[in-house]
Amino acid sequence: MTEKLIIWTLDWVPAGAATRGFVRDLRLRWAAEEIGLPYEVRTVPFDGRETNHLDRQPFGQVPYLTDGDVSMFESGAGLLHLARRSEILMPRDTVGEAETLQWVIAALNSLEMVIVPWWFLTITGQTDNGLNGWLTQRLAHMERVLGERQWLAANRFTVADLLMTDVLRVGLVRAYGERPATEAYIKRITDRPAFRKAHADQMAHFEAADKTRRKPS
Amino acid sequence: MTEKLIIWTLDWVPAGAATRGFVRDLRLRWAAEEIGLPYEVRTVPFDGRETNHLDRQPFGQVPYLTDGDVSMFESGAGLLHLARRSEILMPRDTVGEAETLQWVIAALNSLEMVIVPWWFLTITGQTDNGLNGWLTQRLAHMERVLGERQWLAANRFTVADLLMTDVLRVGLVRAYGERPATEAYIKRITDRPAFRKAHADQMAHFEAADKTRRKPS
Repeated sequence: MTEKLIIWTLDWVPAGAATRGFVRDLRLRWAAEEIGLPYEVRTVPFDGRETNHLDRQPFGQVPYLTDGDVSMFESGAGLLHLARRSEILMPRDTVGEAETLQWVIAALNSLEMVIVPWWFLTITGQTDNGLNGWLTQRLAHMERVLGERQWLAANRFTVADLLMTDVLRVGLVRAYGERPATEAYIKRITDRPAFRKAHADQMAHFEAADKTRRKPS
Repeated sequence: MTEKLIIWTLDWVPAGAATRGFVRDLRLRWAAEEIGLPYEVRTVPFDGRETNHLDRQPFGQVPYLTDGDVSMFESGAGLLHLARRSEILMPRDTVGEAETLQWVIAALNSLEMVIVPWWFLTITGQTDNGLNGWLTQRLAHMERVLGERQWLAANRFTVADLLMTDVLRVGLVRAYGERPATEAYIKRITDRPAFRKAHADQMAHFEAADKTRRKPS
C-alpha cells in the first residue's frame, strides 16, 4: 500500500480535563508513532457529530482510520490492525500474539467496561454510584498484576501496554486510593517518546482549532 | 496441534435468568461448534471463584481456554483466536478481516460496555440509573444498522455476528422499547444449530452439577 494511513478525528473539542489529551485518536497516533508509520489526520465536525458521520462510524464517534482499501472504526480494532503491520506492537509467534490479544481485550472489556461508565456517572454528578465497588475491585486486580511484571505480554512492550495505559490513566486520574505499581506503570509507558509526540500533537490540533472556531461576536 | 481444545468454566452457577445460558463459556462453545472443532470442558469451583484461579484469570472470571501451548482468558480474545483457525468465523482477505474485527470490538466496547454496567445497576435495584439514556441510544444505533443489513461484516455470518448476538440478547431481554430489526437478527442467529447445541450443553452442564452440589442435609 502506497497511500498514507489516515486517522480521522473531530475538528475541535472543548478544553477540559477529560477531553483534550484523551480523545481516542491518540491511541492510533501513538501506535503509528511507535512503528514509524507516516499518517495524516483528517477531521469531521464536532458540531452535529451525533449524526453527521454515521455512515462512517455508526455510533457517531471518533476515531476511525483509512488504510488503503481498509476503512475501520473502533480504536481497539484499529490498534490490532496496525499491530499486524509491525512486530514492534505485537509478536508474531502464536503464544506471544495470544498473550497480546488477551490483554488488549482485557483493557477494553474488563477495565474500560467499568472505568468509562463509572467515569460517565461520576462527571454527571452521580459520584455515589453503584459502580464504585466494581471499579475498585478491577483496579486492585490490575495493581496486583502490575506489581508482578513490567509488561503485560511477551516480556516486552506491546500494543497491550499501549491500550491498557490509555484505559487506566482515565481511571487513575479520578479514582480514590493508592496504586503505586499502576502509577509507576502508567508513568513509565507514557514517558515513551511516541506517546509524548502523539499527545502533544493532539493537544496542538485542538488548540489550533480554537483560533478558527472562536470568532469575535 | 493434536491436543484437544479445552474450555474452562465454573463447575456450577445458581439458576437464574441472568446466569445459566449466559455464562460466557457459551461463546467459545458456540464458536467451536460453528467450525466443528472438538473440545472438552473443564471447571474451576464456583465457591471461592473470586480468588481461587487468579493465576489463570487475573479478574477471577471465566472462561479461559487452553489450546496446545496457548492459554488465554477474555472470551473476546478466545473468539478471535478461534477465528484464526477457520475461515468460517472470519474471512482471510484484508478488508473482510478488518470489518469482522471492527464489529467484534464494537460488540465488546461500544455495546457491552454500556449493556453490562447498565444491567449490573438494574439488577441491584438502581433501575433509574444514569446509563439508561446511553443504552437506549446505542441500541437505537444498532437497530438502524441491523435494519440495513443481514450480517455485520463481509456479507455473511462471522464471529462478529456470534459475539454481537450474545451481547445484544442480554440487553434486549431487559431493555424497554421495540427493536424489530434487532429482535429478528437475534432470533435468526440464535436459531443456528451451533448456538442451540452450545446453549443446551451449557444448561445441561449446570443442571448436572445441581445433583452433586445439593446434598440432602
